[in-house]
Amino acid sequence: MKCKKCDKRASVNMRHHKLALCKDHYIEWILTQTQEVINKYSMFSKEQKILVCVSGGKDSLSLWDILHKLGYSADGLYIDLGIKDKDYSNKSKEYAEKFAMERSLPLHVIDIKKECRFSVPEIALKTARGQKKVCSVCGLIKRYMMNKFSINHNYPVITTGHNLDDEVATLFGNTLNWSAGYLSRQAPVLPEAPGFSRKAKPLFKFYEKQMASYAFLNRIDYILDDCPYSRDASSIYYKQLLNQIEEDRPGTKLSFYLQFLKAKQNGFYFHTQESEYLKPCPSCGQPTTSPSTCSFCRMMERLRL
Amino acid sequence: MKCKKCDKRASVNMRHHKLALCKDHYIEWILTQTQEVINKYSMFSKEQKILVCVSGGKDSLSLWDILHKLGYSADGLYIDLGIKDKDYSNKSKEYAEKFAMERSLPLHVIDIKKECRFSVPEIALKTARGQKKVCSVCGLIKRYMMNKFSINHNYPVITTGHNLDDEVATLFGNTLNWSAGYLSRQAPVLPEAPGFSRKAKPLFKFYEKQMASYAFLNRIDYILDDCPYSRDASSIYYKQLLNQIEEDRPGTKLSFYLQFLKAKQNGFYFHTQESEYLKPCPSCGQPTTSPSTCSFCRMMERLRL
Repeated sequence: MKCKKCDKRASVNMRHHKLALCKDHYIEWILTQTQEVINKYSMFSKEQKILVCVSGGKDSLSLWDILHKLGYSADGLYIDLGIKDKDYSNKSKEYAEKFAMERSLPLHVIDIKKECRFSVPEIALKTARGQKKVCSVCGLIKRYMMNKFSINHNYPVITTGHNLDDEVATLFGNTLNWSAGYLSRQAPVLPEAPGFSRKAKPLFKFYEKQMASYAFLNRIDYILDDCPYSRDASSIYYKQLLNQIEEDRPGTKLSFYLQFLKAKQNGFYFHTQESEYLKPCPSCGQPTTSPSTCSFCRMMERLRL
Repeated sequence: MKCKKCDKRASVNMRHHKLALCKDHYIEWILTQTQEVINKYSMFSKEQKILVCVSGGKDSLSLWDILHKLGYSADGLYIDLGIKDKDYSNKSKEYAEKFAMERSLPLHVIDIKKECRFSVPEIALKTARGQKKVCSVCGLIKRYMMNKFSINHNYPVITTGHNLDDEVATLFGNTLNWSAGYLSRQAPVLPEAPGFSRKAKPLFKFYEKQMASYAFLNRIDYILDDCPYSRDASSIYYKQLLNQIEEDRPGTKLSFYLQFLKAKQNGFYFHTQESEYLKPCPSCGQPTTSPSTCSFCRMMERLRL
């Protein structure tokens, strides 16, 4: 099969777009598409300092690569969760550091064990029940740390490498539960608010496979293992289910997500309880919906007991 | 296994309710649960004349049986679609007639071929494309006919035998497409409006299996074949998918639907375009969202051409 834009052999065939492209034109296409998404959703500008949260995986490292190539001023942030199983955290940090070094890009590292006295799995063990809870403790800590870091180091924008498969799995879970709060907040870009940096997901329209191809064609080395704690996660279950639907009815994932955004734009309204409004945490000052101290401070309090 | 309420052998074991019951107590339980649903959603009263739309299948005949046993004044309406494949329409009419005769209950019959000059499959063939369209043409005709009949014969309430599996499959499809109009109208009861009878689905909380058990234990004879046109329908695809989710995560179906109702009650709001408001059709007088004549009249017009 030939590239649609030149005579070279196609490296990637995207059947849902009816588009086969050679290596160079595929990379160009990904860059153009990302730039269009950044513009369309007014995510950020070239004048802003951007923080890219990198996990060492294909999506976040590809995002950093793309932003760098598009001429954005994007620095990396790696959060070391302290996962010892399969040497997961050390290995993924090495991939992030290698990527940064090769391109002479600045990479910040937060070590959770240093910040909180315990690693994420240890905190989960001490404060929550069951392996499933590791994912929610981890999410809470990462959100807290990346926001705090961006505020303290004057990054007005945080970007993450969430792809379409990630976003659709989250949307699917939130829809099965009709979680008004989560549904009202799920979006490609969350505007800044007092105490909160703007958050953007420039890769949200790309399938996971497309990002794997991008990383491969750009020779980006990344950690292939999944997080050892993610095996039982609901999001993995939803992803498998959605892959099956996509297989039977191609295009369902993208249309499910885009129709959701369109419906919200057309006045699909999720009433948020007053209890979900944000106020500053009386202990750490970060914004929280909690009537008392924020979830992070309460978790740290339980750790001290 | 023993019945939870007496010493007899249990006939039905409902694992999701952790409840095993003998024949008599299962029937009693279904009757009590249905009465509670009718009361909770203010569906109708014992003073009202109720029309039960019966297809000859287990759900609608069970509904008629339940309403009769609960002391409601419920008459049947069978719509003969004229489906010749597998002698489907004749057979299902016989089941409805047998049921009515055995209980000396009045059954009205509408013959679509007499009303519209053509059977439903013929109308679909003449006015729409592809086998899939038979389902939407059939739905349109049934909704039109049952409403017209109820208005002309002074039945303020129409009931249908939709069970939980039916409702959840519809909700799932409407959610995948984020169809604001359909989502805003989907409910256990649709209040009456000018030109519209009230519509209620008293079985919406029962799984399909529970209705099959009810019909079996009451020796209700019903048509076992599925409609020959339903094989490719989306609803069947969604039902299979939802059965898989229910198998992996028991209780998902019921919670997906109940959480949806709760979210709507809590201010989950679906903005309906002005174009979706109802006005009387200038040709037949029945309510329609169309700016000109209603879909039914337009379909009949295409038939005449």
